[in-house]
Amino acid sequence: MEAKSGVPDIIVRRLPQYLRALTQLQAQHVHSTSSQELGEKLGISPAQIRKDLSQFGEFGKQGTGYSVNYLVDKLQEILNVKRVWDIALVGAGNLGHAIARYQGFTNRGFQIRLVFDQDPEKTGERIGDLIIQDSRKIKELIPAHNIHIAMITVPASAAQKVAEELVAAGVRAILNYSPNPLSVPDWVHVEHIDPIIQLQHMTYYLE
Amino acid sequence: MEAKSGVPDIIVRRLPQYLRALTQLQAQHVHSTSSQELGEKLGISPAQIRKDLSQFGEFGKQGTGYSVNYLVDKLQEILNVKRVWDIALVGAGNLGHAIARYQGFTNRGFQIRLVFDQDPEKTGERIGDLIIQDSRKIKELIPAHNIHIAMITVPASAAQKVAEELVAAGVRAILNYSPNPLSVPDWVHVEHIDPIIQLQHMTYYLE
Repeated sequence: MEAKSGVPDIIVRRLPQYLRALTQLQAQHVHSTSSQELGEKLGISPAQIRKDLSQFGEFGKQGTGYSVNYLVDKLQEILNVKRVWDIALVGAGNLGHAIARYQGFTNRGFQIRLVFDQDPEKTGERIGDLIIQDSRKIKELIPAHNIHIAMITVPASAAQKVAEELVAAGVRAILNYSPNPLSVPDWVHVEHIDPIIQLQHMTYYLE
Repeated sequence: MEAKSGVPDIIVRRLPQYLRALTQLQAQHVHSTSSQELGEKLGISPAQIRKDLSQFGEFGKQGTGYSVNYLVDKLQEILNVKRVWDIALVGAGNLGHAIARYQGFTNRGFQIRLVFDQDPEKTGERIGDLIIQDSRKIKELIPAHNIHIAMITVPASAAQKVAEELVAAGVRAILNYSPNPLSVPDWVHVEHIDPIIQLQHMTYYLE
């Protein structure tokens, strides 16, 4: 992952965590916070948080803490989520259904706009407000909706083929729920959702 | 999160990523790797990788790289996943079904052993080899199976109550798929699966 404007990716990776914690404080009507408080919530040292945020400018004053609203606003701007990104979801199995109904998308910069499945039995069915489309329409519908982000929730064996179809249709960022790595061109960003990563982090601390 | 044997949690968090990348190399019959190669796979600087691994001893020699098999073995040991941890899954909806069938668990230290749902209609149904149990049996079955790790895949509104039942039953690590934060005692580890974190990391790089 290239560094945009010189900020190391390892720092960029922490920004969504900060935004998430700050949004939770906002929901609790907390107006001001500190690197100590954020650090405790996130298991990151206060010094690291101050250093990370200082990469993007001056967000708080020594001793007075951070304005929650201001920091939420700035992080949304930095992470490019002051807009809403439309997402295509490929794979309308159990996982696809669950994600299409996930309650965590609201006000965080994303909405699922298209759902695809290769099974003709599923085509035309609804998930909430969405109608399942035939996967063969990926190359037509994704550019037509100007979509650049996709989630892959197909079985492991089909994930690589789907990724290639998505990239050919103009997708530049893929969130991959299948356990296998994807081979894509350099300019396509891929992230994995892999529960084992978080489970192994916790077992480190268990006897 | 407390530091065990003085290693900062921020480093511990990266170890499962290293293990995942190394296991993929192992599957490709690669015997030796470098911090450069791992760094490219993971978007982490080679210097950071060397520094992280050096916290746990000497794993490679300057210039000759790391033995993949040896490093996999050591990381499994450090992360406590040379054994298999039984997991309880609460919530047998679409997401619970998808996770119970996830193909990424094999040989990574975990197996789902119990599945619960509060819906009496679902109790007794099968997901693969598992039989869905009534959630009221959490406090009986979890200690009986000596289970300490759970995944929560219930709707957001029910997650806190389920977390409390799990903790009362002896669970010390929870992987939470619901979008809300959980309030648990200090000695219980909680991690979230939240796709927005990864999506926001990618939109940072998109125009």
